[in-house]
This record gives sequence, structure tokens and C-alpha cells, in this order.
Amino acid sequence: MTKKAIIAAILALGCATTNAQEKLFNRPNVESPVINNDGTVTFNLYAPKAVKVEVSGDFTNAPAPLTEGENGVWSFTTGKLEPELYRYTFNIDGLSDVKDPANIYVNRDITSYTNIFIISSAKGDKGDLYRVNEVPHGNLAKVWYDSPTLKMQRRMTVYTPAGYDKGKSYPVMYLLHGAGGDENAWSELGRAAQILDNLIAQGKAKPMIVVMPNGNTNCQAAPGEWSKGMYQPSFRGSGDKPLASMEESFMDIVNYIESHYKVAKGKQNRAICGLSMGGGHSFMTSKLYPSTFGYIGLFSAAIHVNGEGNDTYAKFQKDTKTQNQLANLFAAKPNLYYIAIGKTDFLYEQNAGLRHFLDDKGYKYEYIETEGGHIWRNWRIYLTDFAQRVFK
Amino acid sequence: MTKKAIIAAILALGCATTNAQEKLFNRPNVESPVINNDGTVTFNLYAPKAVKVEVSGDFTNAPAPLTEGENGVWSFTTGKLEPELYRYTFNIDGLSDVKDPANIYVNRDITSYTNIFIISSAKGDKGDLYRVNEVPHGNLAKVWYDSPTLKMQRRMTVYTPAGYDKGKSYPVMYLLHGAGGDENAWSELGRAAQILDNLIAQGKAKPMIVVMPNGNTNCQAAPGEWSKGMYQPSFRGSGDKPLASMEESFMDIVNYIESHYKVAKGKQNRAICGLSMGGGHSFMTSKLYPSTFGYIGLFSAAIHVNGEGNDTYAKFQKDTKTQNQLANLFAAKPNLYYIAIGKTDFLYEQNAGLRHFLDDKGYKYEYIETEGGHIWRNWRIYLTDFAQRVFK
Repeated sequence: MTKKAIIAAILALGCATTNAQEKLFNRPNVESPVINNDGTVTFNLYAPKAVKVEVSGDFTNAPAPLTEGENGVWSFTTGKLEPELYRYTFNIDGLSDVKDPANIYVNRDITSYTNIFIISSAKGDKGDLYRVNEVPHGNLAKVWYDSPTLKMQRRMTVYTPAGYDKGKSYPVMYLLHGAGGDENAWSELGRAAQILDNLIAQGKAKPMIVVMPNGNTNCQAAPGEWSKGMYQPSFRGSGDKPLASMEESFMDIVNYIESHYKVAKGKQNRAICGLSMGGGHSFMTSKLYPSTFGYIGLFSAAIHVNGEGNDTYAKFQKDTKTQNQLANLFAAKPNLYYIAIGKTDFLYEQNAGLRHFLDDKGYKYEYIETEGGHIWRNWRIYLTDFAQRVFK
Repeated sequence: MTKKAIIAAILALGCATTNAQEKLFNRPNVESPVINNDGTVTFNLYAPKAVKVEVSGDFTNAPAPLTEGENGVWSFTTGKLEPELYRYTFNIDGLSDVKDPANIYVNRDITSYTNIFIISSAKGDKGDLYRVNEVPHGNLAKVWYDSPTLKMQRRMTVYTPAGYDKGKSYPVMYLLHGAGGDENAWSELGRAAQILDNLIAQGKAKPMIVVMPNGNTNCQAAPGEWSKGMYQPSFRGSGDKPLASMEESFMDIVNYIESHYKVAKGKQNRAICGLSMGGGHSFMTSKLYPSTFGYIGLFSAAIHVNGEGNDTYAKFQKDTKTQNQLANLFAAKPNLYYIAIGKTDFLYEQNAGLRHFLDDKGYKYEYIETEGGHIWRNWRIYLTDFAQRVFK
């Protein structure tokens, strides 16, 4: 279309679509959030009838009050924020979790939608790894595969790195989500494609395929993406009893990937890692198939042999099956056994118990301890770190 | 994980994630929308401090008032709704476009997010074609390709049908979005993957590859998916001056697809269609390459030679270049030239002018006229119809 035709179409479309019209003509043109040059962020909300407006987010301990300015626009400016991906919503007159109408960028974490924004610094900080930079991009596909073990079609997300069409074969990282998540979690909340694109472009990670399956073995796919319809998500997937566990059905995934993609075989070309429940799945799967995965990453892992408080080590000492499986796994000499957790994570003691047991047996592992708890900020950090340690 | 371990993890996670905790413990367990057995739909919203709550949607001409019941839960029940995908938001005390916190299913149309739900009837009606049924599913990929003409990496959505890995070669439908849209529009708002999955499973459409490129040639990708960052979308893409038009750069897309996928070649295996601006792109591209596309679909098309009111036919009569290109296109005997529009579409007269011109020349085409205007409901209907007419 010519420019003139485009402008004519815009004007005509403006008259035809009520929502667009409302946005364009009935409200002040509010920009929000505004990332200021000094590293502070200003939120603006048009709410002329509101009495009280606050912003809640992971950059403020308590909801911060906005103040009303001209034309019914409320505003709040943060202090200087570090490079990071941040989440927020508004609270308006007692109504919580209201999305910012000026910001189309949102994330879903189980049942909660929040707006997001990224602070980047162009110094290679975290925020820079999470944003889309002018680098070659990998492709992200929603792929259906057949699971003979679970007797269903299942959906997963597959990242293939830039240049995949020209390359010969690639190592594979299996990247697993936590309870309440699904095959969309790591690519959306975890920014996995952006992290891999950026690390590969910087030469810090090897080009690799990243496979993000659905860890709820009673579901075919994320909510709304399979025949169960548009149900409300929960921590228990569909709530149905699954035919088998993630570890029991895991080779269905590996077999599909290795027969449909250009895959470098052998354990030195396979990594398995995950967060929380997905860390538990990585723990269970790696010891069930002790010669299959060369790189194992437990991020804030909810491991199988869990106890209350400090009794985890005692449970490991009593669990002969787990002991034997771990003995087989470490006899096969994994290239890397990696444990990462935050200091205030509610699974800290459980992971400390596992470490105590591994120390006891003389099994080698790498341990990373960060600030903070059981949150996506930490999982993005662990993925960024782990991705640079594998296949080298 | 065992069931016991899963339950322990759920309880622990419930204590760790504030949003989930709030949803689980501080609010009544509100389900919304509830699709009732009689075909009516009930909306429920917990808003104990609200004074006035309404629901706006494409099933009601005017916002409908909710009434307050027990525990601060407001409700409204519609009349019987026909099978269809519907959109809605709440208006609460003068604040419009508030999303339903009980419904995670949303759609973005340019700058507007709304909640969605589907009424299906299990009779093969529209709503059944738009939902995910228990049929074999195609894969949906976000694919980066190089555009030598536009001198940039660009992103598109590619649907490959179920069984693609086992098949030999497939015809390709190029499916183009409208102004303000992007490569996500047809798969999200248009339910293209669900429509194709269902039509193919029913034997009503041939298995085909569907390519959904980005029609804004001044953008690499949808907002947030390229290095321009998280900008507010507009009808003009990035706002920058593009190096070339969609039709001038279109063969970059065809060349990539035909060299990277299992494609049946020849014009009888290529369809091009699109809505509004994408209908214009289909009009322009098909006549620029008159022997390339066997099937051409204009859905509510914003065609190039547009005028004001009823003067469009006169413009066609004066435009020698367009006349010559259309002469070449129809001399090459396209298998199908398809025009579809709604009776109240603001582009109705423009399309009537094109039809008048085609009639005048004796160029054969199929014409579909529906109720309604320039809306996604109609574009889903046109895709459903057109997909059954191509490659046969």
C-alpha cells in the first residue's frame, strides 16, 4: 500500500474499531511505564474517578501510592532500579491486580497476569540478556509429539538456535518448569529464548536445542491448548490421575527429539535441568537413566526424598533405592551435577540435606547460592549460569 | 514425584508465592465466565468495594450491568449465545477495560487486551472449529528468516499440519494480517491453527502449510519481539519509513519457505489471502507476480486503488498499470479469485468498485457477502470458507 492508502486505512479503521477509537480519542495519550534516563521508572494511569491508586510490583516491598495530576492521570516514580525484568499491577480503590492499559506486555504465572518491563543497561547485565537484542535469533516452536507411555498427544516448546538450518548436529538441553507451570513457562516467564540468543551471540554458550516439555503428566498441553478447554489452571495440572510420572515417561520426549531434530547423541550432548518441581523431575530422571544425561541442573529443586525441616539428610540415609540410583549415576561420571538455590528459598533445607548426602558419599557437584527465594528472578539467573557450563 | 510429594510442594509453593496465595485464600473462589447448559453465560466478579460494575463485549450492544450478590461477588447472565468466540471486559466505577481476574484467557488486538471465551455446540458450528478438539494437531513455530529486500531479519508464524514429518510435500497458504496487526494476529485472534486442525481432521481442507508473515515492512517482528523493545503498537508498525512494500519484498518469504519446508511447488500449490491491509497485500502481490499464486483471497480488503464513496470504479477505469497487471493475472488463469466482505464494512463500496471492474472485464471471481462489518468474527468465517476451497 502507498503511504496515502495506509493513512486512509488508518482513519477508516479508527472509525470501525470501538476499542481503538476509545484509546485514540477519549483518553489522554498516557505512556506507561516510562523508563527514565536516570534508571528510575514512572508509572502513569488515567483513572479520573479513582480515589486511591497504588502500584504493586517486585521492585517495592509495599504497594506504592500514585498521586493524581492533571486530566485524571495518576503517577508514581520509583527510585533507581537495577537491570532486571520487573512485574507490576495496579490496585485501584480496593480492586487489586488491575493491568496497566498503556502497557501491552504481560506475563502469566499460573493464575496471575501482571505487566512487565525490562531495565537494561547495555553493559551485558541481566536486563540485557532478557531483552531482544540485534543478534541472530533462534526459532521457537510449539510441537506436538506422541507419548506412548502416557497414551496421549502432548505439546512442548522447542528452541532451535540461529543457524540451525545450516548446522549439522546440536546438543540438547531439557528445561523443565515447576508446579502450576506448563510448556510456555520457560519461554515466557523465563525468557529462555532471549537468554540463549544473547549468550550464543556473545560466544558464552554453545548453540543448542532447548526442549521445554509439559511436566504435568495428566495434561496434554498448557491450559486452553488442548481439548479440556479453557479451564482455570492449578498446581495439579488437570487434576486427573496420570498414567505415569514425568521420569517414567521422559524417554518418549528424548526419542521424539532425537528422531526429529539434528541432534548430537551421547550423554555429553544431553543436559536436563529444571526449577522447583522441574528440579525434582531432573533429579528423578537423571538417576533413573544414569548414563543418559551428562549435565544435570537442580534449580530450587523440590526433590523426591523430601522431609520436614532438617530431617532430609536422615531420609536420604534410609532410602536404599535412591542411594543405589545415585550410586549408579555418579559411577557413570556425569560431566556436571549442579545445585542452585536462594538463601531464603523454602526448599533450602531440603537441598542442604541432599548436599550433605552427596558430600558424605564424595559425589562431586557444583553449588550456587544466591540471595532471595523461590522466584523467577533466580531461575533466570540459574539458567543463564548453567547454559554457559554445559556442552564444553 | 509421588502424590504426597506433589501435595507437599503445592502447600509449600502456596506459602511462597504471594499472588497465588491471595487468589487461593483471600478471595471467594469465583468462577467466571460460567457457560451454562442452556447456552447462557454468567459473569462473576469479586469487587466488594465497587459501586457500579458492567460487562462490555461483542455479545451485547450496550454495557450490561452486573448486580451485587453475597460476599461482594457481582454477577450478570446473558441470554442464549450462538456458537462463537466472544470477547469481553468489565467496567468498574468508571474504569473501563478491566480484565476478569478469574479468566486467564485473553486476546490482544493492537493495544487492547480483552478476555475471551468460546461457545461450542459439538455440532461442527463455528465455535467448534475455533476450540481445540481431540484431533491431530499441527505445530506452530515462530520462525526468523532473512529478507534481502528489507535488509533485516524478520519473524513469521508457520503452521505445519499434523503428520508433516511423515508427508512428502504440502501446498502453502500465505495468510496476511491487517493494519495494526503482526505475525501473531491470525494464530491468536484468528484461531488459524484451530480452524486448520479441525477442517483437516474433518477432511474438509487439504493438509497445508500456513505462513503468517509480518506485514509491517518497517518492523522485524511483533511489538516486544525485536530489538526496538517494548513499544506501544500502532497502525503504522514501527513508524519508520520502510525500504520496500510488502509486495516488493514478498518473494523473500516465498523463497525462504520453499527452501526450508517440504513444499509442493507451482501456482496450484500456492494461495495468498489476507484481511483488510492484508487483503490489499494479497491484491497487490498476486497481480505483481501473476503466475505465482493459484488462489487469491481478499477478506474485507483495503485495496490499493481506493477512492471515496462510490468513485472507486472510476479510479479502476483510469488506472492503466493496475488494469495491465490484472489482465496479466487473469490471463494466467488463477484457480480462484475470492472476495469476501460484510454488508456494513466501511470498505464495502471500495470492494464493490473492484467487483464492478472485474465484471466489466469478464474476470471470474467468487463473491461472499456476510452480515456485519470489519471484525475478526467475519475474518474467521472467511478463512474457514477459503481454506476449504483451495488446493482442490
